[in-house]
Amino acid sequence: MPIFEAQLEKDRANFEPLTPVSFLRRAAQVVPSHTAIIHGQRRYSYAQFLERSSRLANALAARGIGPGDCVAIMGANTPEMLEAHNGVPMLGAVLNSLNIRLDARTIAFILDHGEAKVLLTDRAFSGVIQEALALIEREPLVIDIDDSESQGGELLGETDYETFIAAGAGAFPAGQPGDEWQALSLLYTSGTTGNPKGCVYHHRGAYLNALGNMSTMELNRESVYLWTLPMFHCDGWTFTWAVTAALATHVCLRAVEPAAVFSSIAENGVSHMCGAPIVMNMLANAPREVKTPFPQTVEIATGGAAPPSAVIEAMEADGFHVTHLYGLTETYGPATVCIPQEDWPALAPQERSSRMARQGVHYGTLENASVKNPDTMEDVPWDGDTFGEVMIRGNTVMKGYLKNADATQAAFAGGWFHSG
Amino acid sequence: MPIFEAQLEKDRANFEPLTPVSFLRRAAQVVPSHTAIIHGQRRYSYAQFLERSSRLANALAARGIGPGDCVAIMGANTPEMLEAHNGVPMLGAVLNSLNIRLDARTIAFILDHGEAKVLLTDRAFSGVIQEALALIEREPLVIDIDDSESQGGELLGETDYETFIAAGAGAFPAGQPGDEWQALSLLYTSGTTGNPKGCVYHHRGAYLNALGNMSTMELNRESVYLWTLPMFHCDGWTFTWAVTAALATHVCLRAVEPAAVFSSIAENGVSHMCGAPIVMNMLANAPREVKTPFPQTVEIATGGAAPPSAVIEAMEADGFHVTHLYGLTETYGPATVCIPQEDWPALAPQERSSRMARQGVHYGTLENASVKNPDTMEDVPWDGDTFGEVMIRGNTVMKGYLKNADATQAAFAGGWFHSG
Repeated sequence: MPIFEAQLEKDRANFEPLTPVSFLRRAAQVVPSHTAIIHGQRRYSYAQFLERSSRLANALAARGIGPGDCVAIMGANTPEMLEAHNGVPMLGAVLNSLNIRLDARTIAFILDHGEAKVLLTDRAFSGVIQEALALIEREPLVIDIDDSESQGGELLGETDYETFIAAGAGAFPAGQPGDEWQALSLLYTSGTTGNPKGCVYHHRGAYLNALGNMSTMELNRESVYLWTLPMFHCDGWTFTWAVTAALATHVCLRAVEPAAVFSSIAENGVSHMCGAPIVMNMLANAPREVKTPFPQTVEIATGGAAPPSAVIEAMEADGFHVTHLYGLTETYGPATVCIPQEDWPALAPQERSSRMARQGVHYGTLENASVKNPDTMEDVPWDGDTFGEVMIRGNTVMKGYLKNADATQAAFAGGWFHSG
Repeated sequence: MPIFEAQLEKDRANFEPLTPVSFLRRAAQVVPSHTAIIHGQRRYSYAQFLERSSRLANALAARGIGPGDCVAIMGANTPEMLEAHNGVPMLGAVLNSLNIRLDARTIAFILDHGEAKVLLTDRAFSGVIQEALALIEREPLVIDIDDSESQGGELLGETDYETFIAAGAGAFPAGQPGDEWQALSLLYTSGTTGNPKGCVYHHRGAYLNALGNMSTMELNRESVYLWTLPMFHCDGWTFTWAVTAALATHVCLRAVEPAAVFSSIAENGVSHMCGAPIVMNMLANAPREVKTPFPQTVEIATGGAAPPSAVIEAMEADGFHVTHLYGLTETYGPATVCIPQEDWPALAPQERSSRMARQGVHYGTLENASVKNPDTMEDVPWDGDTFGEVMIRGNTVMKGYLKNADATQAAFAGGWFHSG
C-alpha cells in the first residue's frame, strides 16, 4: 500500500459526515444564551433551540420514526419550521416542506408520493389540509402547530406540537446521518404541467450550500436575519441552516406584509433578508406611512428574474442593498451570485439591472456553472442573448427526483444538471 | 431499497471530491483578471496563477510524478510557494513544505522519511540544502527557485523553476483527487525530542478549514492578505487556499521585517494578515520611523500563547485588530477562535488578554473541541485553571502521522485528537 494511504484510515477523531444539523449543535455549545429565534413575543436561545429540536426528534423516534422516514410539514415561517429543519434530519428522517399555496389535490399527491408518515400542520392551513387528507388512503400521524401569532383555522390532529415535543427527551440523539449522502429533505417543484417532481436533498449538499450562503451574504454572529422568504422554498434557500452556522439570529414572520416587515427591521435591527422580486416590489411600492425608518443598511438577496431598475433604486433609497442570486429547487436554491463589475456604475440603471440578473458567478461551494449549447455541451457566452442552457455541476445539486429515475437521468445528462 | 436511496446514486452532476484546488479553478473562471498575487514588482492575475500552477503540475507529470508522490519545497513566501500549493495537489501528489529554519540533519531525515521525489528549493537556502542532500542516498529531482526579490545563495539543481514550468502545458490537469480523503500535503512537527512526526493532510480537511478561515476572518474579494505567516507553517494555516477561495489578493513577503511590513500594508491596502505573537511583538515595538501610517484597520490573527496585553494595546493603537486563534499542525492550524464575550470591555487589559488566549470556540467546519480529563474523557471547564487536555474531533484533523501508526493511534485514542 502506498505510504500516504497505509494506516491512515478514517477515524472518529478525523472524520464526521457533513450535516447542517452540526451547526445547531455547535451554536448551542459555543453561544448557548445568544438569541437564536425571535417570533412575536417568543424568544429562544440557541440552547433552547437545540433542546426543542431534540425533543421533536426524540418524540418522533418514540412514535417509530427513523432514518429514511418522511415527515411532512405545512408551516408558516415560525420557530416550529426551524425546529423541524433540525429535529427531523437529526433522526435521519426526511423533511418534506409543503408549499402553503398548493391546492388540496396537489398536497394529497405529494403526501402519497413522498410516503409521509407524519404531518406537522399549522392551524392556519387546516382547511386545505383537511381536504387533502380526505383524498388519500394513508393515515399519517397529524400534529397541529398552534401558533400564538396566528388566528383562525382548526386543530385537526392527534395532538398539538407543544404537547408532542414536551414528551420527548431533551438530549441530542446522536448517530445520524450515518452517511452524508443520506437524504435530508424532499421538496417538490411546482411544474406548470403534470405532477410535481420531488427533489431529494442530501446532508452534504445542504451543509455546503449553507456555508456558501454564509460567506456570500457575509453573515456573522451579529447578523439578524428576517424570514421574508418562505422556509418551504428550497428549505429557505438553506438559510434555515446558514443563519445558525453564522451564530446569527432568526426573526420569524408569518406573512410578508410591508408594515410588518419595516417595523420588524427597525425593532429587531435586521441586517439580512431574502425575497423574490415580487417581495421587493411590494416593499418598494408600500405607502410612505408604513415605511418605519431604520438606521442600518439591510442586505437583501433576491432571485429569479431581474427586478426592474426602478424597484432596485427605490429599495436602495429606502436603506436596502440588493444582491442577485440565481438557482433552482434542484440546486438548494442559490447556486450563483451576481458580482458587480467595475464598469457598472457607468451604466444606465436599466442596463445595470439586466446585467445583475444574468452575470452569475458560481458559489465557491459549487463545482461549476456555465451556459452550454445542450446539443454540443460546449460553453457559450453567459450574456442572456446567445442561445444556451444554464448547466450546473457540483456538491450542491440534489440527489435526484424521488421515484423518477427517467427525469433524474434526463436532468443529469452528460454529467451536468440541466436547468431547463 | 428504501425510496430515498433507490436510483439516487452519486453522479458527476451532483458529486465532486472536495479539494482546495477547486478554489483556484473557480477564481480563474469567475475573476480571471483580478490580481491574485503581488510580489515586489511581480503581479499575477487569477488566470495567470492557475496557468502557472497547471504548468508546474504538467511539468511534474512529464517527469513521472503522479498521485501519492511526494514533492518537497524549501521556500520563502513567494508566488512559487502558492503555485506549489495548487500545482502539486492538482496531480494528486503530496506537497511537503519544509521549515526553512531546520538544520541539514533534520531536513535530510524529512526528505528520506517522506520519500521526496522532487525538491523545489529557493536559492537563498542553498547552503543547508546542499548539506542535507549530501546526507541522503536518494536523489530527488532538484529545481531551483530563483526569486528576483532575493540575493545570495547558489543554484543547485538540474534546472530552475521558470524554465521547468515553461515546458509544462498550461491546461488544468483534471481528474484528481479521485477521493477527497487522498493525501494533500505532509508537514513535520518540530518536536522537542526525537525525530519529527509527519502530519498527513487530506483534501477534504484543507477545503473545509479554508472555508472556516474565510468566514472566521471575513475574507472577501476586496481583501488583501499579507503573508507575514510562513506558508510552511501548516500550509500557511490553510490561508494559502482560503485567500483564493475568497477571490482576494495574496501579497507575498520573503522576510518579516517591520519596515517592509508597514510599507506593504500602506502601499497595497492590506486588510488581513496572520502571525505568531512574536511577530506582533516585533511590529508593536518597531521604531516609530518605520511605522508607515495607513488609513484602514488591519485584521491580524495570531495563535499560540496570549500576547501580553501591552502588545495588543500597542497593535490596536497602530491600526490593527487582533483575533486569537488556536490550533496545531495536526489540525491544519486554526481550530478554534476566541469570541470576545460581552463582559470583556469591563475587564483589566491583562485579564482580557489572558481570556483571549484560553476561551476558544471551535470553527463551524470542525465537529468539536473541548477540554477533557484524559483519564476519564469527561469534559472539564475550559478556563486554563482546571486540569485537562484540549481535545479536538472533526473533518479538519489530519489523516494521521506518516509511517507511524503507534503515534497516530495514541493521538486519536478514544476518538478524539489529543493536543498533548
